[in-house]
Amino acid sequence: MAQKPSIPKGTRDFNPEQVAKRNYIFNTIRGAFETFGFQPIETPSFENSDTLMGKYGDEGDRLIFKILNSGDYFDKTKNGIMAAIRIGEMFYQELSKDELSGVNWLYRESRIQIVHKFLKAAKNGGNSSIKNLPPEDVLDLIFSMIHRNYKDLESIPNDSKRQELFANIYTSVFLNIKSNSITPSISEKALRYDLTVPFARYVVQHQNEIEFPFKRYQIQPVWRADRPQKGRFREFYQCDADVVGSKSLWQEVEFIQLYDTVFSALKLEGVTIKINNRKILSGIAEVIGASDKLIDFTVALDKLDKIGEEKVKEDMLSKGISETGISKLQPLFTLSGSFESQIESLKTILSTSEEGQKGIEELDFINQAISELGLSTAKLQLDVTLARGLNYYTGAIFEVAAPKTVKMGSIGGGGRYDDLTGIFGMPNMSGVGISFGLDRIYLVLEELGLFPKAVNKNVDVLFINFGDKEALFTLKAIKKLRSEGINAELYPDKITNGKHMRKQMNHANNRNIPFVVIVGDEEMTSNTYTLKNMVSGDQEKVSLETLISKTKKS
Amino acid sequence: MAQKPSIPKGTRDFNPEQVAKRNYIFNTIRGAFETFGFQPIETPSFENSDTLMGKYGDEGDRLIFKILNSGDYFDKTKNGIMAAIRIGEMFYQELSKDELSGVNWLYRESRIQIVHKFLKAAKNGGNSSIKNLPPEDVLDLIFSMIHRNYKDLESIPNDSKRQELFANIYTSVFLNIKSNSITPSISEKALRYDLTVPFARYVVQHQNEIEFPFKRYQIQPVWRADRPQKGRFREFYQCDADVVGSKSLWQEVEFIQLYDTVFSALKLEGVTIKINNRKILSGIAEVIGASDKLIDFTVALDKLDKIGEEKVKEDMLSKGISETGISKLQPLFTLSGSFESQIESLKTILSTSEEGQKGIEELDFINQAISELGLSTAKLQLDVTLARGLNYYTGAIFEVAAPKTVKMGSIGGGGRYDDLTGIFGMPNMSGVGISFGLDRIYLVLEELGLFPKAVNKNVDVLFINFGDKEALFTLKAIKKLRSEGINAELYPDKITNGKHMRKQMNHANNRNIPFVVIVGDEEMTSNTYTLKNMVSGDQEKVSLETLISKTKKS
Repeated sequence: MAQKPSIPKGTRDFNPEQVAKRNYIFNTIRGAFETFGFQPIETPSFENSDTLMGKYGDEGDRLIFKILNSGDYFDKTKNGIMAAIRIGEMFYQELSKDELSGVNWLYRESRIQIVHKFLKAAKNGGNSSIKNLPPEDVLDLIFSMIHRNYKDLESIPNDSKRQELFANIYTSVFLNIKSNSITPSISEKALRYDLTVPFARYVVQHQNEIEFPFKRYQIQPVWRADRPQKGRFREFYQCDADVVGSKSLWQEVEFIQLYDTVFSALKLEGVTIKINNRKILSGIAEVIGASDKLIDFTVALDKLDKIGEEKVKEDMLSKGISETGISKLQPLFTLSGSFESQIESLKTILSTSEEGQKGIEELDFINQAISELGLSTAKLQLDVTLARGLNYYTGAIFEVAAPKTVKMGSIGGGGRYDDLTGIFGMPNMSGVGISFGLDRIYLVLEELGLFPKAVNKNVDVLFINFGDKEALFTLKAIKKLRSEGINAELYPDKITNGKHMRKQMNHANNRNIPFVVIVGDEEMTSNTYTLKNMVSGDQEKVSLETLISKTKKS
Repeated sequence: MAQKPSIPKGTRDFNPEQVAKRNYIFNTIRGAFETFGFQPIETPSFENSDTLMGKYGDEGDRLIFKILNSGDYFDKTKNGIMAAIRIGEMFYQELSKDELSGVNWLYRESRIQIVHKFLKAAKNGGNSSIKNLPPEDVLDLIFSMIHRNYKDLESIPNDSKRQELFANIYTSVFLNIKSNSITPSISEKALRYDLTVPFARYVVQHQNEIEFPFKRYQIQPVWRADRPQKGRFREFYQCDADVVGSKSLWQEVEFIQLYDTVFSALKLEGVTIKINNRKILSGIAEVIGASDKLIDFTVALDKLDKIGEEKVKEDMLSKGISETGISKLQPLFTLSGSFESQIESLKTILSTSEEGQKGIEELDFINQAISELGLSTAKLQLDVTLARGLNYYTGAIFEVAAPKTVKMGSIGGGGRYDDLTGIFGMPNMSGVGISFGLDRIYLVLEELGLFPKAVNKNVDVLFINFGDKEALFTLKAIKKLRSEGINAELYPDKITNGKHMRKQMNHANNRNIPFVVIVGDEEMTSNTYTLKNMVSGDQEKVSLETLISKTKKS
């Protein structure tokens, strides 16, 4: 029975110190979310598959963790396949009855097509008598197998030949079924892939209970079947805040302040909040005359710092961006300096693009408001190469970079999307939101030594367990300490034959417990407590009152 | 594309009010756990299947949610089955080469058995060249199909006959595969079913980093594919505290105090902490002379209050408990009154059982300690019918009943288990722990109206948005309020053409926001704020300082 225990790759156990540090970040973010007026919601860990599938592209669909149906899930698949093959057989018997042997194959084939179409229609119409039919691509497979097996027959096969033919069909179908095709019949639920799609589903499902504009936050884990790497996990938390139902640019201003508030509260100074606007990117696409080259363009431009202007231009040319387009955007290569001077340059570059001008206006509005309101420790920076989730965002695009002293990808991001809930049948709901990357923030705080010392809610006082009489006496004191909010405990096992006192002291040391209390006969008689400071080594006899005041967290 | 959005049965969305109320319970429990010296850990949502499977009985195995492997999971299954069938075919070719046609079938059969055994051994030995072989029961199936297809052959079949035979085998295997058999080849991970098994796995895996005795708490969701019912969900939280590595009965004393502390902090007065001991139950089994009747006995005894002594005895007789056994336990039928008097009765009843006496001793120790220490609002009660998880617990058994005014099953439970980590190869680790049933506690607090009014961390102040100039002015004030911990926000969209002021006021009303601030030209000039109390309707012009002091939570 003994197994060497392990956990699935890409997942993690968290020990008490790690949990405490993670909670410190969660609580800081949660506190800021709440002072900014966001309200928490929670959604189930798994959603119906059709809520999630098709929302993240083919790659996303692949990375969604699917949950196997309960019970005899495979019987349903087998029965559906058998039913479809039997319907094919019934059709064959019809052919046989009509003495169609020798009739032109095209005629027979056209009748197979009719049955095929009938089955597809029945399946899509949810006909309950054959509701377990396999998905369309398996139906296609079955009929192509029937086709292949009967096509060249010159006469009606006898029973044993028919049996052989159907055995062939079963075998070929089985060997040719693709995993993708049976997934829908054996799995109807899937683990949450992000918090945005469940939020959109929540908004539509509960629209009558929600007071719009709705400012919600959500801090929950998500799961992705990604290849695990350093800093990339298969289970990780997302911390999202979104406003839905308002197109006001003040929300973008608020989110920048929210980032600043959280990172300042975490004492993480020097983060850069990068901002761009989808409309700027559309403007650039207009100017280079090729919207399909936009990603190539921004990817190339993003490397400017590393490889220099000439190499970037070569890169662009090799990607098929015209020399004329590149020359029109020449000023982008020297974009630098303040937000304001970048805005001025963009006005020239994008002068011919109406959408580009709109993007500049929006960025200008946001920047001016932030200049007036001020940021505590973060810096706002315009970055026209910022293009994350290009097909998703429709207005502002945010990304937060850690201080330059730390090598780390973005520690946050977000943006505006004009039609958040359209996929669930509720059009014209504009949403804008940001996300905090917990795991990376954790690594940054760890590297810079920014976790507060008191973050670990450790035990404050350990009482030595001399024996049952002493234990009972000390538990009365422990009860008082706990009611004062002091984390206190009795060592579980008693000292036997006066031995093992050292063991209990070591236990306090190993757990970094700052105080130990010793109570023996003398203390019980005088109603006092010997308090030992485990850091200084000092030891003194004190009253219960003094014990409380000395061990209480400042 | 539009879908009617819904969530899987047995799962729930939580709105802001529900999240706040749940967090109130979580935080109360967490706070008590920490003052009692428990430290938090967290484990992944999914574990390797072999960590979970076989730990909860057949019923539990069935209720565990399995996660489908990524990629072409079914190819592996198909390929494994094909490989096994081909190995069978190779063997058949051997038969053919040896010209074994006509040889006694038993001889051929014995050779099939040898191949069969070789494959099973190769599979269990993890032979990498055939590592994808299907599970043993599918191998059995394959070989029974080969057996059936070849048994009656009198001569070596020709190629086309062989092809037909193998088609038959493929088909029969496909049609006869059970879901259970392919699950291990298409799913290697499963969602956590409780927190105890993952904790045991954690302790063994991290034993070298843990300082024992180890007191841990864990508050995380678990998932069960149970039939959803009122109050029973497929995703729900467990809140567990356990001590591992100590046999001291002081832990049981501590857990009773912990229950009392939590329920008192929740203002839930009048809960009953029921306690029993597995050794008492073993003693009863000894006395009635049938340990296999113990569950029938306790189930029958548990109905005493409802159906009376005579009916209970009839019930016991019908379950096969002897008249002699029942008469020996006669005093159990009149067990009542104080803990102490019950202990006295048990001493008589179980006088012949050494184990029973040990159980009485333990209960007595715990009861005396609790009498000395006192409980704030809960009551400790001995209940000899308490038998939850009978095969699991080895010492104390706990269960908490809600106040009698509320109809509700147990709101907590736990006990001691002598060998927590044995299943993972680390023997002799005694554990004892308790659990809080969040969902039921929630329902009880709701029914009794015990949630504090201020539990919902709502927005305290909404600032009306008159226009961009005013918005900027108010955002400066909002920033100050937030830095004082006041939840404040600006209405997202501005009033256009002086209209829609009413809309913004209604928004504050609908969200139960207690204060609204109005800032127009006049206020900006005089640097003041018009503060409206939405409950009383009072309105006054105040300075920023007064605004802060008036809206700050007391």
